[in-house]
Amino acid sequence: MYETDPFEGYALSFETAERDVLGRIGTFGTKSGKLETPALFPVVNPLAQEIPPRIMFERIGCKALITNAYLIRRRGGNTVVADIHDFLDFPGIVATDSGAYQILRYGEVQVSPAEIVEYQQSIGTDIGVILDVPTGSRATKARAIETVKETTRRADEAQKLITRRDIAWVGPIQGGLYPDLVAQSAREMSKRRFDIYALGSPTEVMEQYLFADLVDMIFAARTNLPSSAPLHLFGAGHPFMLALAVALGCDLFDSAAYILYARRGRYMTHAGTLQLGEMEYFPCKCNSCARTSPEEVRSRPIVERIRFLAEHNLSACLQEIETIKEAIVEGRLWELVEVRCRSHPSLHEGLLQMRRHAAHITRSAPSTKRKGIFFFDSASLQRPEYLMYVERLTRDYVPPRSARIALLVPATSRYPSKANTSTDMNWTNVGPGAHICLYYPPYGIVPSELEDTFPFSQTQSPQEPDPGTLKAMAETVRTYLAKSRTYQTLVVVRSSKEWQKRFAGMCRNACRKLGVKFSTYGDREVSSGRIRILGRKKGYLDKAARRRLV
Amino acid sequence: MYETDPFEGYALSFETAERDVLGRIGTFGTKSGKLETPALFPVVNPLAQEIPPRIMFERIGCKALITNAYLIRRRGGNTVVADIHDFLDFPGIVATDSGAYQILRYGEVQVSPAEIVEYQQSIGTDIGVILDVPTGSRATKARAIETVKETTRRADEAQKLITRRDIAWVGPIQGGLYPDLVAQSAREMSKRRFDIYALGSPTEVMEQYLFADLVDMIFAARTNLPSSAPLHLFGAGHPFMLALAVALGCDLFDSAAYILYARRGRYMTHAGTLQLGEMEYFPCKCNSCARTSPEEVRSRPIVERIRFLAEHNLSACLQEIETIKEAIVEGRLWELVEVRCRSHPSLHEGLLQMRRHAAHITRSAPSTKRKGIFFFDSASLQRPEYLMYVERLTRDYVPPRSARIALLVPATSRYPSKANTSTDMNWTNVGPGAHICLYYPPYGIVPSELEDTFPFSQTQSPQEPDPGTLKAMAETVRTYLAKSRTYQTLVVVRSSKEWQKRFAGMCRNACRKLGVKFSTYGDREVSSGRIRILGRKKGYLDKAARRRLV
Repeated sequence: MYETDPFEGYALSFETAERDVLGRIGTFGTKSGKLETPALFPVVNPLAQEIPPRIMFERIGCKALITNAYLIRRRGGNTVVADIHDFLDFPGIVATDSGAYQILRYGEVQVSPAEIVEYQQSIGTDIGVILDVPTGSRATKARAIETVKETTRRADEAQKLITRRDIAWVGPIQGGLYPDLVAQSAREMSKRRFDIYALGSPTEVMEQYLFADLVDMIFAARTNLPSSAPLHLFGAGHPFMLALAVALGCDLFDSAAYILYARRGRYMTHAGTLQLGEMEYFPCKCNSCARTSPEEVRSRPIVERIRFLAEHNLSACLQEIETIKEAIVEGRLWELVEVRCRSHPSLHEGLLQMRRHAAHITRSAPSTKRKGIFFFDSASLQRPEYLMYVERLTRDYVPPRSARIALLVPATSRYPSKANTSTDMNWTNVGPGAHICLYYPPYGIVPSELEDTFPFSQTQSPQEPDPGTLKAMAETVRTYLAKSRTYQTLVVVRSSKEWQKRFAGMCRNACRKLGVKFSTYGDREVSSGRIRILGRKKGYLDKAARRRLV
Repeated sequence: MYETDPFEGYALSFETAERDVLGRIGTFGTKSGKLETPALFPVVNPLAQEIPPRIMFERIGCKALITNAYLIRRRGGNTVVADIHDFLDFPGIVATDSGAYQILRYGEVQVSPAEIVEYQQSIGTDIGVILDVPTGSRATKARAIETVKETTRRADEAQKLITRRDIAWVGPIQGGLYPDLVAQSAREMSKRRFDIYALGSPTEVMEQYLFADLVDMIFAARTNLPSSAPLHLFGAGHPFMLALAVALGCDLFDSAAYILYARRGRYMTHAGTLQLGEMEYFPCKCNSCARTSPEEVRSRPIVERIRFLAEHNLSACLQEIETIKEAIVEGRLWELVEVRCRSHPSLHEGLLQMRRHAAHITRSAPSTKRKGIFFFDSASLQRPEYLMYVERLTRDYVPPRSARIALLVPATSRYPSKANTSTDMNWTNVGPGAHICLYYPPYGIVPSELEDTFPFSQTQSPQEPDPGTLKAMAETVRTYLAKSRTYQTLVVVRSSKEWQKRFAGMCRNACRKLGVKFSTYGDREVSSGRIRILGRKKGYLDKAARRRLV
């Protein structure tokens, strides 16, 4: 991973403002104006458009689109295109693709890499792509290596041909389903001068719902590129996966899905795809859907039906981009990703795959946030704030020097900062050797002197952890005890709640293996007055209890 | 629970068409037209409206509203209201409340139960409410009992006063946070003649985010009312909880939240509440939000700002109702509930609380569906199809008479019906005593002869179960073996996947306790050719393996 950007000040400007998880809101400067990211470029057929580009700009709110320079050049006939904006009648930002997708589909294209760079310059595109060689999802490793090498060679060739530096140039990253090759490709491309890096081949991967693989691919690319450069994910444009991709550090997207889906009668939502033919209600209040019904739309002529769906689909994509940006502003991007990944079990596998990249997440995500965090269950264990807690507790935190006993007490309220076991209760009675710590989902052990710091007092979670979270809590206790080497005894105080009993049992097992003494106080001790820890009552440890502890 | 409806054909018509979980799409007939349910009645102040009712009807699409008959009568001054529709200038369905909410807030009202029934009849309301005594969420049990008794007494009194039977009359159910009292109240009220039953007091419960309690309250009411009657949830109208309430069997809602929130600068979404003052993007394409920005709205005069928020909030509620209805049509209501309950940890507790009501869910939810089901993790273990599987397997299913060995093999693909271990592989070699069964998340054991039936072949789930699901799978195996009493041996075949090893270990523990012989085949046996079960290869058991089995 890059510590500094080798091309700082070199690329067209990209500035990031807000950040959450690995996602960010940024501004990318082009010669036709600034583009706020994350952004989606709808793919527009240069020769025939279902929705006129001007309507896209004015009515639907698309500020940028992408079209295919190769197709214009090849099939444009005698039309001489002096300026792509005029040609399309689009006043926003225009990106052009180079024909690489046609290579993937048809095996070859009738243009040279030099010709297509030259052509994109001549039509005044804002963002151009060199002619790379896509790996695809079915390539053997040998073939994948070949595509990476050839794409790198073409990148070098392109550098010599590029004369217009007011155009933002995209450097494609190949390697397909081989993360090591993607990483290598990203490293190679980042040595070359590009304004945007773009990960190739995800379309097929997404079509096959291989979201766990997609997560690995994106991580391989993102971690081997300078974080100051925007990352474009080629061919990704279903609203249900955009939040995940943004959270992994993707900034730009392009997709023809809105129109391809429309032609097949498919209605996009941020939760998946519905079939117009089977729908009875529109779960949407966009301009297209607000004043009609599926039945009425079905009665329209096919061309109008496709136009209706294309406009709705585009609107759904743009709405999701706004939702993602607002979530970043609110510091709730992770919550949004968890929800979106419940649109399909394969997408959920993508979310779970993030656990493999915990180290990178903890290194790169913002470490504090304006708002509290919502923790639900083991699916939330991948979230950066939790991973950072585990890492800092087990790697950086140093217990008080005198600590010999870890006295682990449950936080007594949903908002631990309000329960405040350590200040609320007279735990000072326990003597100098005891170190009071709290536990509550998902935190297995929180030294009480840290209880008011982020994220502990800002976490809201269900009062009972699911089995996966409970396991993680006990595992944190085990790791902490093993690494700190300070404690001779662990005392777990618990109420009659079933999960607290199980937690104590798991801690006991951990202590046995570590050779740490263990004891637990349950309801009987609590009610007998030897320890009072529940509710809002003052708690204390009397002499007898202290003798048992020390 | 009622098997037959004691008032069938008696009440104003309520017909249900589509059903999912305990939710349904229905049509309720009133004298002003039919109302499709689930439906939300926005609360409209009879004396001063931020949004004119006609605008609500024509532009925002509200087909029904609720206003307060008590306030009109008390504060209307000299205005004689001949017809409430004309008075409000609202061409849709008008419901009127009786002043009970004012009792809850101010302790008493200056009208008698008889007067308010009479008054509602005189102004021609479509749906009227008798003057009940709300329990609230802070009542002692003694006070709660009192409110239930007094509400029942008033219901009897009202029956005698009601002369207009073209008005739909609402019978309120009280009991507050005491489910036993709610159940008793529901039983009492359902003996009386009402067209709609309504659960009181949830507003305070929701304000305190006590969603687990709310689930218990709704269950207590719903299971003690005839399923043919619509259930109204008083004072519920935040879009983030509507899906859960519908899935529990609520049909009608009313709420002033859209305007109360607007006055405090709060912007509702199906995922929670945002503060206009802190927003940068609108995650919405409704008529209000589509063409502006939070910054622009903040610059407007306060009255316009409130109107903007009220219109958006109302639109967000109505959009959520449409989303819920479409989910019911698609058979995806449960998936929607899981997603919505990830809006807040307290709502998630509500979802988890449903496990307490598993018996009722399995009895009342539809048993098959048009679409497949998406299973994610232990949060999905409450879904009806899964609960029915466990119940039927362990209670109704009879294994083949010859079965002595349960041979439990993993399904080898995401879509078990395509993997087809039993037909794909030559398992017939194993001899007559072996009964081939499959396992895959979330199903611990599926007799192979059932693998093509619902829900087994229609379930999509992540390839790896979370710890909670794994535990449930092993528990099903244990219960099944214990109840069937047929098997002397359990053989678990597993691959090298970590979760399958753990599953085999959990099955071993269960067998030990049950006195069932246990063996497991892992990678070594598989690769040595003694059993081949992985991938798409033909599998078989050779003589040596058979000897080990039998």
